[in-house]
Amino acid sequence: MNQDQPIILITNDDGITAPGIRNLVEAVKDLGHVVVVAPDSPQSGMGHAITIGEVLRLHKVAVMEGVECWQTSGTPADCVKLARDKVLHRKPTICLSGINHGANNSINILYSGTMSAAMEAAIEGIPSVGFSLLDYSYDADFTLARKVVRTITKQLLKVQMPEHTLFNVNIPKGEEKDFKGIKFCRQAHAKWQEEFDERTDPRGEKYYWMTGKFLNLDEGSDTDVAALKDGFASIVPVKFDLTDYKMKLRLEVEWKGMSI
Amino acid sequence: MNQDQPIILITNDDGITAPGIRNLVEAVKDLGHVVVVAPDSPQSGMGHAITIGEVLRLHKVAVMEGVECWQTSGTPADCVKLARDKVLHRKPTICLSGINHGANNSINILYSGTMSAAMEAAIEGIPSVGFSLLDYSYDADFTLARKVVRTITKQLLKVQMPEHTLFNVNIPKGEEKDFKGIKFCRQAHAKWQEEFDERTDPRGEKYYWMTGKFLNLDEGSDTDVAALKDGFASIVPVKFDLTDYKMKLRLEVEWKGMSI
Repeated sequence: MNQDQPIILITNDDGITAPGIRNLVEAVKDLGHVVVVAPDSPQSGMGHAITIGEVLRLHKVAVMEGVECWQTSGTPADCVKLARDKVLHRKPTICLSGINHGANNSINILYSGTMSAAMEAAIEGIPSVGFSLLDYSYDADFTLARKVVRTITKQLLKVQMPEHTLFNVNIPKGEEKDFKGIKFCRQAHAKWQEEFDERTDPRGEKYYWMTGKFLNLDEGSDTDVAALKDGFASIVPVKFDLTDYKMKLRLEVEWKGMSI
Repeated sequence: MNQDQPIILITNDDGITAPGIRNLVEAVKDLGHVVVVAPDSPQSGMGHAITIGEVLRLHKVAVMEGVECWQTSGTPADCVKLARDKVLHRKPTICLSGINHGANNSINILYSGTMSAAMEAAIEGIPSVGFSLLDYSYDADFTLARKVVRTITKQLLKVQMPEHTLFNVNIPKGEEKDFKGIKFCRQAHAKWQEEFDERTDPRGEKYYWMTGKFLNLDEGSDTDVAALKDGFASIVPVKFDLTDYKMKLRLEVEWKGMSI
């Protein structure tokens, strides 16, 4: 390994055998020394879960030719922690997570294991990007996604960014000829309208499958939802200080003097 | 049930049998119609996980006298979704989560199942509060915590707040005589320094337990960490738009013209 090369940590939430992570590696592997540390099984919807009540396993595996790969029994956030402490023994230059099979725009960032891995890295002071493709299928076409990943990664490695830099990147489904470019966006205000699918098991007991409909509640033209709809890839810069400063000021006036 | 009574949905991440949720119910049960929907087992560190790859169970249980209680096989975020759709069949007036056994101040909000339940409710348009006591022990003294919970809940029910209102409340360990009051704060900048405890199982295979040291990197006197250290309970108003607007402006200038 060349000492001057950037170290690129790669992880995901669909598991180390998912096509998305393989495409991510292919897109950037000549830009630095790539090390993959990813879950041994799919972890979608894990949010920012960490593993504290169970033990963690970590094994070196040969799944991508010429690339150092490790699989863990943990969540995406666990992978970043293990990579830092038990694989690399230092901070990588950047961390890339994905490419997720399916969108993580708008509030989906909160449920996304892909983004929680990137967020974990950013908290650690490692500039990070989570990538998602708006195509859930296992045999999705990652051609356009790989180009977008490569462009953003090259830029991130070229420009000195603050250590807590974190981007949520979503890439539209489709071919390059229909692609409109890369757009900086804010997170759209939206929610999921749940529709629990109620069934009965062979023992006569009720159970539920969670399904739902994504409801965009935001008409803004500057959101990630709007950009993707128009054929752009969206970059939402993300911060992990969740304080609502406006509300804090309001409470300091309106709720003043509250005591038990 | 009195039709004019507020409906108070209560959940947690330590599970429906934890002392913390029982103390939360005791603190507010005369302030409205209380309904409990909580996980059937501890879910600490689950972050904003949701259950999409497995089925969900939901059962009415008799664990608190005179209070409607349901347990689910799901995460704290699942509980809120199930409560809204399959138990209440409408939005509750407010949602309270906790009382968590252990602190959820600073960046711990990101890992916290307690806070993810409250956040899920706030996304749904239900003003919500997550409560945590700075005492991990099972037989912690909740006397002071109950008073803080009651004060904040009464205020929340009295004042018309925006539907997406969300508070992260942490309560110091100790007695009322040492209590300094309730303070509005911002989220402290901090991180966890992991220390993986490496062991060998009876088959000779390595495994890890995640442990760690909380590192406060924030000297500000207006943070939740500072308030708690000084004997205050902290209220951090939280928002779930994670966009870094300053960074967005910077990128629009500095990264202009980037194309694949």
